[in-house]
Amino acid sequence: MKIVSENKSFGGAQRVYEHDSDTLSCAMRVGVFLPGEAPTNKTTTLFWLSGLTCTEQNFITKAGAQKLASELGVVLITPDTSPRGVGVPDAEDSAYDLGLGAGFYLNATQAPWTKHYKMYDYIVHELPEIVSSISSIALDRLGISGHSMGGHGALTIHLRNPELFKSVSAFSPIVGPSEVPWGRKVFTAYLGDDRERWAAYDAVRLVARNQSGAEILIDQGGADEFLEAQLQPERFAEACRAEGQKLHLRLQDGYDHSYYFIASFIDDHIRHHIRELDRLTG
Amino acid sequence: MKIVSENKSFGGAQRVYEHDSDTLSCAMRVGVFLPGEAPTNKTTTLFWLSGLTCTEQNFITKAGAQKLASELGVVLITPDTSPRGVGVPDAEDSAYDLGLGAGFYLNATQAPWTKHYKMYDYIVHELPEIVSSISSIALDRLGISGHSMGGHGALTIHLRNPELFKSVSAFSPIVGPSEVPWGRKVFTAYLGDDRERWAAYDAVRLVARNQSGAEILIDQGGADEFLEAQLQPERFAEACRAEGQKLHLRLQDGYDHSYYFIASFIDDHIRHHIRELDRLTG
Repeated sequence: MKIVSENKSFGGAQRVYEHDSDTLSCAMRVGVFLPGEAPTNKTTTLFWLSGLTCTEQNFITKAGAQKLASELGVVLITPDTSPRGVGVPDAEDSAYDLGLGAGFYLNATQAPWTKHYKMYDYIVHELPEIVSSISSIALDRLGISGHSMGGHGALTIHLRNPELFKSVSAFSPIVGPSEVPWGRKVFTAYLGDDRERWAAYDAVRLVARNQSGAEILIDQGGADEFLEAQLQPERFAEACRAEGQKLHLRLQDGYDHSYYFIASFIDDHIRHHIRELDRLTG
Repeated sequence: MKIVSENKSFGGAQRVYEHDSDTLSCAMRVGVFLPGEAPTNKTTTLFWLSGLTCTEQNFITKAGAQKLASELGVVLITPDTSPRGVGVPDAEDSAYDLGLGAGFYLNATQAPWTKHYKMYDYIVHELPEIVSSISSIALDRLGISGHSMGGHGALTIHLRNPELFKSVSAFSPIVGPSEVPWGRKVFTAYLGDDRERWAAYDAVRLVARNQSGAEILIDQGGADEFLEAQLQPERFAEACRAEGQKLHLRLQDGYDHSYYFIASFIDDHIRHHIRELDRLTG
C-alpha cells in the first residue's frame, strides 16, 4: 500500500492509495477518507461503488461526503470501477459500458475478461482486508452504497454478504441488469449466454432467494435520463414487496443522474447507514 | 444567453449559460446557481473567480457551495478564467500560467492579447449586467470571492469597485503579483515592462490608495505548496495594517492549495459575505 495523494479535508484526510491486487492481477487505486477523530469501535466504514466511466476520483471530488463523514466519524472507502493498466483488456471499440471503467462488480467467466475482471471478489474479499490494515479501520460496522452500476454492485453485494456489508443504500441503481440493455450487453460478454448465471448479479432476481434484515434505501431522480430504459426501480420495489424485503425507495422529483443529485442526498445516506448499523449491531 | 446545462442541486438549479461577450470578443460560459427560493431584495449574489487552468466547472462540481447557498438563498456566479475559442491566442508553449485559463482578471495592453484578454472589464462591467437579466438577480447585495489567481481577482476588483462588489473574501490569493514569479510573468506579457501599470492589479499596492469599508476574509492553507514562492499573504496583511484596512487572515494548518481546502471552508465564506452585506447595506 502506498499513498498516492493526501489532502486535508474537513479536519480529516482524503487519501488515495495504490496497491497490487492479487485478485485483479493489476495495480489498483482506492480512495480512503479518514475523519479527523481516530477510529473507535463505534466507527462506521462505508464502501462507495461508482458508476460507469468513473474512477476512485469522482466520488471524492464531487459528492461532498467528507463534511458529514468527518462530523460523524465515518471512514469512506472508494475503489475504482474496473481493473486498470497495461495488459488489462478493454472493449474492442473502447465502449464506455464494457471493459475499462465498467467492471460491473462481478467475476467474469468468459475470455478475454477472466484474468482481470473479478471486481466482485475484489470488493468482497480483498479490499476489506486491505483497508482493515489502514489506521485500525474495523469491519464490524461496514455499509455499502453506490451509484448506477455501483448501485447495482451495492445491492447485489449486500444481498449476498449481509453479515459483512450490514447496511446498504443506492442512488439510481441498475436493479435488474438481466432485463436492460446495459446489463444484457455486459453479462453476455463477461458471463456468457446462460441467463441462470446472471442471477447472482441481478438484485431483482437475487432478492427472491436472499433477503436481508437491513432496510434498503434507494434514491432515484425523477428526471434521470436512464430511468425508463436502464434503471426501472419499480421492478425491484415489486420484488422486495413480494419477498418481504424492507425497502425505502424515494423518487426525487426533478433530479438527474449526475453527481449533483448524489451530493444533494449523500448526507441522508450516511445517516441511514449509521442508523441501520446501530440497529443491526446494537 | 443560452442554457448549456442545468442540474437540480439541493432544491435549486445549477445552470451553465453561454453568451457572446462584447468585451472579450468570444463566446463565454458562466455558471449560475439559483437557490430553490425565488430571489428577493434580500438575495445575496456571490461572484466566484477561479484559479489558473480552471473553467466555470471547477467550483460548481468540487466546492460543495450549493448546499448552504440553497439554504440561505444565495446566487452563485462562476465565470470562466479567460477568453476561449478559435482565434483567442494562447501562450506559445501552451503554458498553464499564461493565455488560456490564465486571464488574471486584467485588461491586457500588449500584443497579441489586447483584443480578447479583458477579463477585468468583463467581470466588472459586462457580467453583472448579463446576470442581472436572469431571473431577477439584483446587484445591490453583491460579493466577490475567489481562489489563487481568482483570489487576486477578487481582492483587486473589490478594492477598485467597493460600491459594486461590497463584500470580499479569498482563498490562497496571489496578493502581490508584481513581486512573485506568476505575476511578473503574466504582467510583463499582458501589460508590458512598466511596473507602474501593474499597480492597478496588485492588491498589496492597491490597498495603499484604495481602502474599503469591508472586512476582507482570507483563508490560507498552511501546507499550500505555493505559499512561500507565489502567495505570501503576510505582505498583504502588513499593507492592510499600515493603511487601516480591515482584514481577517486565517492560516489553516495542514491544508493545501486544492478544492478540498476550499470545500472545507466555503460555508464560512458564504456566511461572511451575508454578514458583511447585512452590515454594509443595512
